Parts: sequence; C-alpha cells; structure tokens
Amino acid sequence: MGGGISSTADRHQFASDNYAGACPEAWQAMAEANRGHAPAYGDDDWTTRASGLLRDLFEVDCEVFFVFNGTAANALALASLCQSYHGIICHELAHVETDECGAPEFFSNGTKLLLAHGEAGRVNPDAIHQLVTKRSDIHYPKPRVLSLTQATEVGTVYSVAQLEALQEMAQRHGLRIHMDGARFSNAVAAAGVTPKELTWKVGVDVLCFGGTKIGMAFGEAIVFFNRELAHEFAYRCKQAGQLASKMRFLAAQWVGILESGAWLRNAEQANRCALLLESRLREIPGLEILWDCEANAVFVMIPEEIRDRLRAKGWRFYTFIGGGARLMCSWDTTEADVEAIVQDIKELMNQR
Amino acid sequence: MGGGISSTADRHQFASDNYAGACPEAWQAMAEANRGHAPAYGDDDWTTRASGLLRDLFEVDCEVFFVFNGTAANALALASLCQSYHGIICHELAHVETDECGAPEFFSNGTKLLLAHGEAGRVNPDAIHQLVTKRSDIHYPKPRVLSLTQATEVGTVYSVAQLEALQEMAQRHGLRIHMDGARFSNAVAAAGVTPKELTWKVGVDVLCFGGTKIGMAFGEAIVFFNRELAHEFAYRCKQAGQLASKMRFLAAQWVGILESGAWLRNAEQANRCALLLESRLREIPGLEILWDCEANAVFVMIPEEIRDRLRAKGWRFYTFIGGGARLMCSWDTTEADVEAIVQDIKELMNQR
Amino acid sequence: MGGGISSTADRHQFASDNYAGACPEAWQAMAEANRGHAPAYGDDDWTTRASGLLRDLFEVDCEVFFVFNGTAANALALASLCQSYHGIICHELAHVETDECGAPEFFSNGTKLLLAHGEAGRVNPDAIHQLVTKRSDIHYPKPRVLSLTQATEVGTVYSVAQLEALQEMAQRHGLRIHMDGARFSNAVAAAGVTPKELTWKVGVDVLCFGGTKIGMAFGEAIVFFNRELAHEFAYRCKQAGQLASKMRFLAAQWVGILESGAWLRNAEQANRCALLLESRLREIPGLEILWDCEANAVFVMIPEEIRDRLRAKGWRFYTFIGGGARLMCSWDTTEADVEAIVQDIKELMNQR
Amino acid sequence: MGGGISSTADRHQFASDNYAGACPEAWQAMAEANRGHAPAYGDDDWTTRASGLLRDLFEVDCEVFFVFNGTAANALALASLCQSYHGIICHELAHVETDECGAPEFFSNGTKLLLAHGEAGRVNPDAIHQLVTKRSDIHYPKPRVLSLTQATEVGTVYSVAQLEALQEMAQRHGLRIHMDGARFSNAVAAAGVTPKELTWKVGVDVLCFGGTKIGMAFGEAIVFFNRELAHEFAYRCKQAGQLASKMRFLAAQWVGILESGAWLRNAEQANRCALLLESRLREIPGLEILWDCEANAVFVMIPEEIRDRLRAKGWRFYTFIGGGARLMCSWDTTEADVEAIVQDIKELMNQR
Repeated sequence: MGGGISSTADRHQFASDNYAGACPEAWQAMAEANRGHAPAYGDDDWTTRASGLLRDLFEVDCEVFFVFNGTAANALALASLCQSYHGIICHELAHVETDECGAPEFFSNGTKLLLAHGEAGRVNPDAIHQLVTKRSDIHYPKPRVLSLTQATEVGTVYSVAQLEALQEMAQRHGLRIHMDGARFSNAVAAAGVTPKELTWKVGVDVLCFGGTKIGMAFGEAIVFFNRELAHEFAYRCKQAGQLASKMRFLAAQWVGILESGAWLRNAEQANRCALLLESRLREIPGLEILWDCEANAVFVMIPEEIRDRLRAKGWRFYTFIGGGARLMCSWDTTEADVEAIVQDIKELMNQR
Repeated sequence: MGGGISSTADRHQFASDNYAGACPEAWQAMAEANRGHAPAYGDDDWTTRASGLLRDLFEVDCEVFFVFNGTAANALALASLCQSYHGIICHELAHVETDECGAPEFFSNGTKLLLAHGEAGRVNPDAIHQLVTKRSDIHYPKPRVLSLTQATEVGTVYSVAQLEALQEMAQRHGLRIHMDGARFSNAVAAAGVTPKELTWKVGVDVLCFGGTKIGMAFGEAIVFFNRELAHEFAYRCKQAGQLASKMRFLAAQWVGILESGAWLRNAEQANRCALLLESRLREIPGLEILWDCEANAVFVMIPEEIRDRLRAKGWRFYTFIGGGARLMCSWDTTEADVEAIVQDIKELMNQR
Repeated sequence: MGGGISSTADRHQFASDNYAGACPEAWQAMAEANRGHAPAYGDDDWTTRASGLLRDLFEVDCEVFFVFNGTAANALALASLCQSYHGIICHELAHVETDECGAPEFFSNGTKLLLAHGEAGRVNPDAIHQLVTKRSDIHYPKPRVLSLTQATEVGTVYSVAQLEALQEMAQRHGLRIHMDGARFSNAVAAAGVTPKELTWKVGVDVLCFGGTKIGMAFGEAIVFFNRELAHEFAYRCKQAGQLASKMRFLAAQWVGILESGAWLRNAEQANRCALLLESRLREIPGLEILWDCEANAVFVMIPEEIRDRLRAKGWRFYTFIGGGARLMCSWDTTEADVEAIVQDIKELMNQR
Repeated sequence: MGGGISSTADRHQFASDNYAGACPEAWQAMAEANRGHAPAYGDDDWTTRASGLLRDLFEVDCEVFFVFNGTAANALALASLCQSYHGIICHELAHVETDECGAPEFFSNGTKLLLAHGEAGRVNPDAIHQLVTKRSDIHYPKPRVLSLTQATEVGTVYSVAQLEALQEMAQRHGLRIHMDGARFSNAVAAAGVTPKELTWKVGVDVLCFGGTKIGMAFGEAIVFFNRELAHEFAYRCKQAGQLASKMRFLAAQWVGILESGAWLRNAEQANRCALLLESRLREIPGLEILWDCEANAVFVMIPEEIRDRLRAKGWRFYTFIGGGARLMCSWDTTEADVEAIVQDIKELMNQR
C-alpha cells in the first residue's frame, strides 16, 4: 500500500489546517479505543470520559455532543436555536455564510442569514442593532441568533471586552449566541484567558468546538452552556446523520487531546508559527498584510505572478478575495516550514 | 489513559456488528494515511484510489462518494432519487423506516415511506404493485423509489432471482432502486456471487455500501451505478454536513479493506459464526429460530427470564419485537465466542 | 360568460362537501367586505371581528389565524407543535396520513406520522399507549402530538367521554393534542354540545376549524387554545405562503357564518340529510352500511356494477377501500336530493 | 353586519395595490361560479377555461397552475427550478429577498438567494456574471436560477432589450429564468408589447402572474413556458397547501379579468394614475422622485414631519429605506384620488 501520495504531501502546506493529519495524542487515544467491543451510539466509556473532560475544561455543567464535522456542528447547533422563520445574524465573511453551501438554511429548513458588517472579521455591535431594528414586520425573518466565529475567518480574535459588548447587544434584542469555534483553541491560545471566559461567562449559549483543525482526524464537539437548548438534541443529531455508531473513535480523540493538553499546545504552536510568518513577511518589500495576525492565519497581498510561481514550486494555499493569499498554520507547522516558504517568497519577490 | 472500559468490553458481544472496532487492514491503512499533509475534501490520492478500487470491485464505471455513517448514506442517496412529494417503497421492517428517526423524511424534506409486506424481511413484488396501484391521485405521494436492504434486517439475503423479479416490478412502475447495503458484504459472502450480480446487473441505481459494520472505524460509500443520478451529488453531501475535510481518513480505510480482501473475508467470518451459532442453538430444546440465518444475524426466541440471566452474565444483545433476541456476529467474532454464549444459554435453559 | 358548466353541476352531488359552493351568509359578507380599501395582511376590521367571534364561540381567549385551506391549516398547526424528529400519532385512516401528499412531513421538515388503530375511525387510547411505549430510543421519532379528526374520516364523531379518555392518555405521555376539524361543525351539530366541550375542555391545544366544507368559498381557522404554542405563528404562516394579503375576504366569510349561525345550521342540514340517506339505504336489500352515520357521511357497500350505473346516471361519489361508496352531504344538500339518489339506487338494485 | 370598517377605508389609499378589493369583472365571474356543485381540486370547467385563456394570452401551449398567493407562487415555482444546494440570483431589492420571510428558502429546503446589484431595481447582467464566476467550489451554492421581478420593486420595467441581454447571460451560465410577475400586468401595460414578448420569447421558463394586485380578491397563476419543469408540479402544490379544493373560485376570477380585458385595463388605469401622480409631485418644490415611474408606483422623498402629518390626515403609505414614501396606485385609483393626496402634500409642504 502507499506510494500514491504526491510529492506535495512531503511538506507541510499552508493551505489549511485541515491539510494536517491527526496529532499523536489524538491518534494514540483512538488506537487505545480500538480494542475489543464497546457499546454503540455513545453508550461507551470513552464518550463519558470525553464529556467529563469538556465539562472540566469549561468549569461548568454543560451538555456535550460529538459530531463528525464542522458544517454539521454549526448547522445543527443553529437549528436548535431557531425556527425556520428566524434570522441568524453573522458577519458577512462568516464561514456559515460563505462556505457551508447553505447548510444552516438546510438544517433549519429555511432560516435566513442576516449579514453584519464589522472591521477585521468581527461583528460590530452597532450592526446588530441596525439589523434587528431595520425591520419588525412578519415579512422579514425575525432575528433570533447571533453567530460569532472565534477565531474569525480572517485570523483575528474577539477579546473578552468585545464579547461582552456583543453579549449586551444580544441580550437587549433577545438573541441567543452561537459560537463557531472551528479554531476555538487558537482563540484561547491567543487571548490568554480560560475557555469559560470566552464562552458562557460572556453569554455564549452553544459553542461548536473544533477538533478537526486542531489535531484530530475528524470530529467536533457541540457544547451547550444553555442546557435547556440541548433538550432532545440527540434526536436531532440522529435524524441528521450525525450520530456515530462507533462513537468511541470520535470521543477517544477528544480524550487524547484534552487529557494531554495537546488541544492548547497544538494551537499555541500554530499561532506561534503564524506570528513568525507574519513578522517575516512584513520584512519583505512589496507585500501587504491585510489583517493583524492574532491566531494561526496570515492574509497577505501577493502579486498574482508570484502566487503562480509559488504554486509552481509546490506550495498550496487559498486565494482570498481581491488577490490575497491565506497562509494557514496548523498544529504540525514548524518554524522551518515558515522559513522555507518565506525564503521562496522572498526570492520570487526579488526576481521581479 | 484507558482503564475506563467496562468489563463487558473484554469479550466479543453479539449485540451489533457496530460493537466491534476497526479491523487491522482498515486501521493500518488509516495509519499510513496519517502522514504529512494532504489536500482536503477528497482531492487527495487516497480518495482517488478508493474510488478506483470500488469501480474495479463492481466492474463498472460508477460514481463514488464517501460519507460518515449509514443514516446519512441512505438518506442522502434517497434524497437524490426523489422529490419531497414522492413515496419510497420499503419493507415494513426496513432500517430506513424503523431506525433512522425520520432521516429519509428530513433529508428529502417530507418524502413518505410506503410500507410493503413480505416474508422473511424481503419485499414481495406483489406488495409493490399493490402500493403503486392503490392510489394514483395527487393527494397521495407518488411512488418513485424502491428501497431494498441487502442483507435484510432479519438476516436473510435476496437471491439474484428475487432481485430480478423486483427489478421487473420496479421497471414496470417507473421506480428507481436504492439498496441499503449496510451489510452488503455479508450478502455477497452469503450469495456467493459477484458484487455486480447483486447490484447494477439487477437494476440497482444506487448502493449504500456499508463500511462501518464490516470492519471500518466509520464510513460508508455511496455508489451510483446510474451515473446521471449522481449529478451534483457532492453539493448535496456538502450541504448536509457529510463532506469530510480530512477525507483521507475515510478513503484510506476503504483502500485497506478492498486491496486486502478484508471486506469479504470479514463478512465470511461473521456469516460462518452466525451459521454455527444458529446450528448450535437449534440443538437446544425450548428455543425457536425465527428466520433461517443467511448472513450474520440469528434471531431466536428466548424466554424472558433466560434473557435477563444472560444479561446478568454480561452478555449484550438486542431484543426483537415479541421477545426474540437478535444475536449478531461481527468480523471479529470467533468460534470460541459462539461456543461461550451457546454454553451459557444451554446452562440457563437446563436450569429452568 | 358561463355556459361551460357541465350538466352534472345541475344537481347536488354526494361526492364531497367541497363540491358545494359558498353559502349565502358567507357570500354576502364577502360582498360587503369588497368595498373600498382595507389594510392588508389582517390589519383590517373584518379580521378583528372574525377573531372576536371565534373567541366568543369558544368562550375563551384563544389565538386565531386564518389560512387558505385545510392541508395548510393542519400541516402548519402540526409544525408548531413538534420538531422534525418528533412523531405525530394519528389514526391510520386520518386525512393527514392518507390525503395530504406528505404535507405534515413537508411543513415539519421530516416529522413522522405514527399510525394508531381504532374502531370506526376513532383512535383507541390503548393504541396510543402502545405506540409511545414500543420504542424509547433515539433511533425512532419521539411521539409528541396526538392528532384527532373530528368528525372522523368515516363519518363518526368522538364523544366528550371518548375525548376525555384520549386526553388522559395524552397527558400521561406528554402529547399535545391537535384536532383536525375540517368537519368540526358537523361534529358539534352531531354531539349536541358546545364547541368548548369538544376542544379546550378536553385538552385540545389547537383546532383546525374547517370553513370550506361548511359553506365558505375557501378558508380555515387555526385556533390555539394553548396560546403559548401560537408564539410567532404569524411568521410561520407568512413563510409558508398562507398569509392572505387581502385577508378581509377570508375573515368576512367567517363573520358571515358565525354571526348568522350558518356555521351550525349548515352542519345540521348536512347531518340531517345524511341520517335520512342512511335510513333510506338501510331499507334497500343488498346494501351494507359500513359505519353508523353520525355526521354528514354515509359509507355503504354497493356492488360495482351498480356504482358504474349510478355514475352513468350522472351521480358523482368517491369509492372507498374495498368497494364502498362514500356519500357525503353538504350544506346545500336537500331532502329531495337524498330521495333522488336513493330512488336511483333502489331502481338499479331491483334491476339486478 | 358591517359598520366596523374604519374611516380610512372610505378613501382609496396609496399604501399598496393589495388594499384594493376585487374588481367587478373578477367578482362577477366568481358570483357566476358560485352556482350549484362543481368537481373539486381543479377538475371543473372554470379551471379548464381559465387555463385556456392564459394559453391564448401567451400564444403558446404553456402549463398553468392556480395558487392562493404570491409568496407561494414564487416559492413553489423557484422550488421546481432548483435543488436545496442551488443558488437563486435576484436583485438585492427583490421581493423574494426582502419580503417573503424566507419562503423561497423554506419551500426549497435551504436554497440561498444570491444578491445582484443593478440600477433602478433591475438586475445588471454583469452582476450575474460576477456572482456565477466568483465561486465554483462545492462550498458555495451553485447558481441555477435567475429571478427577475417585472415590474420591479421600485416601479421600473425591464424592456425587451434588457430582458434579451439577461437571457443571453442566463443561457451562458446555465441559469433558468423565473419571473416574479406580481405586477406583470402593469409591466405589459407599460411596455406596450404583448405578454409573450416579455416572457417566453426572452427565455422566461416560468412566470408567476399576479392576480391579487390587479383586481382579484386573491389568486396567482403559475405559468410554465418550459413545460418539462411543470412535471409533477401539481403534487408540489398539493403537498405545500396550495391546491384549492373549491378551485373554481380561483379560476373564475381569472376568467373574469381575462375575457373582459380587465387584467390590462386595470393595469393601464393604475399606471396612468401613477404617472399623473409623479408629474404632479415633480411640480412641488422640496420633493425628490427616486426612480422614474414606469408602472404603478411612485417613490418620493418626503420630509419626515410631512409624512407624519399626511398620516394624521388619514393617508396610508409605506415608508421606504432612507425616508422615501412609496405611493402605489391600484386598479381602482382615480385621478381624483391623485389630486386629493397631491393637494394635501402640497399644502403641507407650503406650511413648512
């Protein structure tokens, strides 16, 4: 077996944190879980342990569910927060708006996303007020949920103070708060506060805690701090095809990264590399950093011909609107990887 | 880590084939896939290889998609075969009817399951005719799909001749054919024919090929023999939360069990154990076998107090309607496991 | 204009109570409403008056909504009572099961109807208990609603005592109660009690009160006795295409039939004709009445060749399962109409 | 009866064309239809006649369906043109986007509206190109439909040449064309061409032809020029609660306004009044007309205190974004009505 992997796999790419595999801690736990028989559908010990570890992490008695991927985590969580005729306020660059192919609308049977402006990928509290008060008739979906992405799509992080301002606005308008935490670990690492300070203490009702991007092979946790909203959520998961029969393989990975601390260590490594990458790129004349790097992504304007040549050299990355390149660091990115791509960019820029 | 697994995990249970873990071939391939970076969302080499292997297996140029679990596989496949106002004909014991918590209805936005009778878990062709001709007005969902489970919910298998009769009926009434193949491998092993003889050669439009129950940690393949029906199916998977970002972990397991032949070997082992179990149980006075064992399940009427005592001895199994016990063999069930439970049953029956 | 109406329209048919037009009281009110301008979407005085009249009728402060037809009324009401993963218990002959083309499943995004047995079209309380207790795992929709049809599909009527028994069972299992009252007026006329005794006093949470079949051109009222369940229901109506812009044309008809008492008078006339029809048919040898006539329908076994000849004579009626004819009386059916069809049946039976 | 209508109903308002009642031609036909019995669900002669008249009007063999209101007409038509993972391109001011409370998303089970820019309420062909080419990955809904509103939300009209340019762009990108014709009659009257020149000759696949706003009590026609797309559409209507049982009351109104020519005469009257209104308002210093009036609406910036005083004088109208007033003329608006409101506005402006 093997042999089919192309040469571009021999290096660590900056395309996405989901280009990376599973980290040793997640893998090892999954290997341990793969022994003998275990009850299906979450009635196993690994699931119990993983749930307990998440309660410990958030220092609160929350309800926890494990699903396969981030699209489902967000869409199911949102569906449990609203009815089909409600509106979900999110940033215009939010992943649920731009990259889920209508999953929130599908799972909620027609809920509309209402797009808020805001600097650096962060929802502006005033934009919420504007969206909620603009219309109050039944011909327009009633705003019911505020969805925040932490860290944001452009690699920035909401501070506790910013979240408090959003919480106040949400409370004023009767909005529940959903947090898309595909990169929640990176946000915690960046903010330097405890998980609870970024979630239930600032009014987050439900967090979709990303595992895939922080070192798991697959799997996300849906954490309900508002436990009433979790009522019958297991049925929702089942009906929507998100109840794993061999749940232990999902849960064990969580045990692996939580018990070992890898969930945070991995994020710190990715963030550190991104910060290094940003600082090195800022030294190169002719490049422009689009947003201050606060987590594990660097958005940089690179001329088109340089991007093409970078790709010709085997590098993979996403191109952002208007010609920016998104360079994403993952748990296995190393300082050497950063220097390697920086070196290539520098050379190409000099050859211009 | 570890230590939390309860004592019942120390033995192989007969509760479900999803109590078993991942087989060595699937696991090893997944381990190999967990090296370095790979493109996300199926643009990796493992996915290409797995798709090719499935095409080879079915000896036809089919379209292949990998999803997380069986609920999603069946519900998404059915959604691609019908509109919300259509009806899906299935056996009254079909898993899509009895154990999916309304997933087909949810993914199809309201499609109705129309229940057909039939001996030993098999849809009777005449029952199809009856259902289709009973109503032809717009006040009742228009039958559009015939969904067959192979092997069936009660451990029987459709023969090629039986499938041909169903195909003829489906064609007469303009029905597309979906096959729920959660235990397709067991059916192939039991029928002793090639995969194509049980699928596209008898008119199956789309097969949901189960991986989880035959030795994978998770994962099912949706195989469209009618390639037109696969049009834009990737969008459907994405929107429904079934597009794995680290797809290689799904695909590699398929490579592992297909290249090694484990997909069939595992099924043969499970079937062999089930047949042994059936024959040994038939020797015990006071028990009644409900359906002839043809695949990997034995359904046996066991007095309630005996069932309770079996459970007290640590055995796990599902109870079927009317007091039957379902004893399911998996890829890792051994002849010794069979003898162990038979011995316990025999003793308990003798003590009555 | 005109002239195109076929000769069968010259007589009153027994096909359905929706073959009849609008009664004078409904028509006259609609004509009065058709003067000048009025605010749209229900902000008009007719809507206020109609709502008030319904509150008076039910002697309680209920929430009232007006929609276009019965399919929508039932499906929207049910959608407000349950989530997509819930089950709705109804009689196996219930209109929501047999004649709505999957509308409840569509509006609720996948809710499953769970079919209960019961004599004479009435749900048996024990059947509810059986359905609720049969399964309690998350692989099967959780029963949440009991849907009753009053009068039933086979022309029978639930007594207050029968409703009380159902209420008790519903409460025991946490089921909300929906009443499909397409022929609620006929039931009230038959039961000889007040509307409240058949609804909120026996635990009905929401009633779909039929207007179309009792003399309106179109229109049904959704009456929430459990007012919490009406929360945001106007949004649901709007999103589902059931908010009439010129609402006064719906509301005025209700004003017309409620203020004048026609809603009950019409039902009494239809019931009286049906009872006459039943008694006259019982006199004819060779016919068999299937269910005791309690409202406005008579179900009678008529030999196929007689049915064909009746149709050849211009009569229209629906054929029921197994060869029965459904003869339905409407608000404009007269005793002469009854005698006319009885005469034809008698003659045809004699000629055999 | 009566008496409850408030004094504001004594005058013709400019709030909306759905403040007007039914015109005599529609009413009279409905009255004629209200005689005796007629088959239900569209199997009556009025429905046949109305369908034939629409085919005559469009000079083509189209498929015709009658539904209750515009929300349902548009949402059902769009649902028949796309799958849940598709995108519908429409103008950012389109009614389906701004005033249907998520109905298109609900009926299509999650389809996303993709918003195009364009002057004066008209979709710009280049904006279509931009939307279609911006994304081509499966993480974003695939554009499948172009939805045009004719006349537009801001009272402008697409010319034949403009429609041809849009048709070319739609064909280039494989988009089907839906036309929201809530005010299609006004557009025909304004454009001075035949109905076919604004529809199937410029590639429109399906038109939602508004009846309510042009003089019916309620009712819209869905006209499929692309007849394949109408396949099984009756089932869709039924399941979605849009199949009228007493269909003749919908169909007769169409017969009434089509046979008599009222459909166009009413539009001409409304347009004429709107043009008069526009020209008279242009004479008043301090007002600003926002868009050239081409159909039956005038959008004018009026200072807030003047708007308040106008309302105090009993006038009703909608306020548009940024402080504009929408003054809408209907079939029963008269030149005297126009002069009355103009006189009041003029006086109030002079008093400033």
